[in-house]
Amino acid sequence: MMRASDLRRIFEEALRQYLLAVQTPLELLKPMVYSLNSGGKRLRPLMLLTILEAIDPRLIDKGLATAIALEFIHTYSLIHDDLPAMDNDDLRRGQPTSHVKFNEATAILAGDALLTDAFGLIAQDRQLDPALKTQLIADLVYAAGSTGMVAGQLDDVSHQDQSVSIDHLKQTHLMKTGYLFIFAVKAGGRIGKINEKAIDLLSQFGHHFGTAYQIHNDLKDILAIESDPDSLLKSDEANHKSTYPSLLGVQESKDQLKHELHLAASCIQALNHQTGLNFSGLEQFLGAISIE
Amino acid sequence: MMRASDLRRIFEEALRQYLLAVQTPLELLKPMVYSLNSGGKRLRPLMLLTILEAIDPRLIDKGLATAIALEFIHTYSLIHDDLPAMDNDDLRRGQPTSHVKFNEATAILAGDALLTDAFGLIAQDRQLDPALKTQLIADLVYAAGSTGMVAGQLDDVSHQDQSVSIDHLKQTHLMKTGYLFIFAVKAGGRIGKINEKAIDLLSQFGHHFGTAYQIHNDLKDILAIESDPDSLLKSDEANHKSTYPSLLGVQESKDQLKHELHLAASCIQALNHQTGLNFSGLEQFLGAISIE
Repeated sequence: MMRASDLRRIFEEALRQYLLAVQTPLELLKPMVYSLNSGGKRLRPLMLLTILEAIDPRLIDKGLATAIALEFIHTYSLIHDDLPAMDNDDLRRGQPTSHVKFNEATAILAGDALLTDAFGLIAQDRQLDPALKTQLIADLVYAAGSTGMVAGQLDDVSHQDQSVSIDHLKQTHLMKTGYLFIFAVKAGGRIGKINEKAIDLLSQFGHHFGTAYQIHNDLKDILAIESDPDSLLKSDEANHKSTYPSLLGVQESKDQLKHELHLAASCIQALNHQTGLNFSGLEQFLGAISIE
Repeated sequence: MMRASDLRRIFEEALRQYLLAVQTPLELLKPMVYSLNSGGKRLRPLMLLTILEAIDPRLIDKGLATAIALEFIHTYSLIHDDLPAMDNDDLRRGQPTSHVKFNEATAILAGDALLTDAFGLIAQDRQLDPALKTQLIADLVYAAGSTGMVAGQLDDVSHQDQSVSIDHLKQTHLMKTGYLFIFAVKAGGRIGKINEKAIDLLSQFGHHFGTAYQIHNDLKDILAIESDPDSLLKSDEANHKSTYPSLLGVQESKDQLKHELHLAASCIQALNHQTGLNFSGLEQFLGAISIE
């Protein structure tokens, strides 16, 4: 099994090659590249590639265009979420956000370009057959568009200053972040052509991972505020958004995080059993969001 | 031959049926529908359907999903162009723009949703085969993404308060509006499976039409300012953008408009000759943007 850093290197090289070849004018390419290379962990593409590697390492190449498309969609969503009219964040991962570094018009357009080009990456991929490509695009639209991420983001910004129910919060985050994780793992299964039952297990894994990821994010913010009260200024707390800890308390949130991680780990076991393959490479993603 | 109003009716009904069936949450669907139904002339979808009708009226159904996708992309571009950070327009076609009617976050997200969903419309279409769908999606990304419309829009907003050369202005508008017209007519040819030579003529028609459309728009603004000086406030003149009349003068702009319309009309003749079909239905689009 490859180390995670090998897959990461393969992904970064493929992304670099893609960006070198595009015909995008430099003024637009610059803000796109700035946000693409601003220190993200490449979680979604690496999940997809980890699944392909588990099925057959020779399939990794087949997943690269879709992996880059995923990172494009994720990056566009961060650029637009950070805008003054949305979460109004000046910094992300310690760097100026796109509208601060460039300007608001450029940030909006760099996001629009990343979103649009993502679908071209899949449509133009020469390694996948057309029927698979149209299925991947349809799945990605379902995850990212008006039935998924965009709807989740609208729900999120619409309920600042309001407390929502825990079920509402779960549904919002499922759409806002969960669906894209579910797409990432399902895409790995589809490109690797494993059976529908196994793809369904991947989908369940993505669902539990997505929920755990959000609880972990909310808890991290709370723990950061406890150790550094200044960080409150830029948190969801400051935006008066509901979070898992604000609705459930810290301890119950930790328990739920542990529960979701446990369910995700069970999916990996079931997948191994179902396919006779070894998907234990997915465990690293669970380890990265555990809290003791 | 159907009347234009028949094709329009067929398109509006298909759009209505699509919007009734989507699973988009109502808070997001409302701003999407508001901008979709704000009085647009449906030029791009009707061009596509007119071409299909010329090839074979039974093909019209096959073009409806792509026609709706085109209108989604066009509508998203208007919502984002009107934002305060871009052209800052409060009114479009006499109605409040999306960010005025709703709020800025909602307008950005309604645009994002329309853009994303456009690709799903094509990918999920059951009437086209997968190879054609991936080609249409790749073409649409080329026209709308970082190589086309988005790049043109960035160039446009970046050169407010600056005079540019006429060649620069032509290239900007080709990307900003021309490419989507070219996609509309080429898509008609591809769905209708006419030969490559004929598709190339359609592409040339789209190119000349797109240029003529932009000159006509600029001239209309100037003539509106002459008859109603208040309209200056919301024009490209007020934004200090270069326009055809500002660079070439009114008379030379009118001459160039006439010239482009003449070249577009020649493409229709050449198409008829090349295919043995009758594409004269396209002439109505030229008539709509002539100025005496």
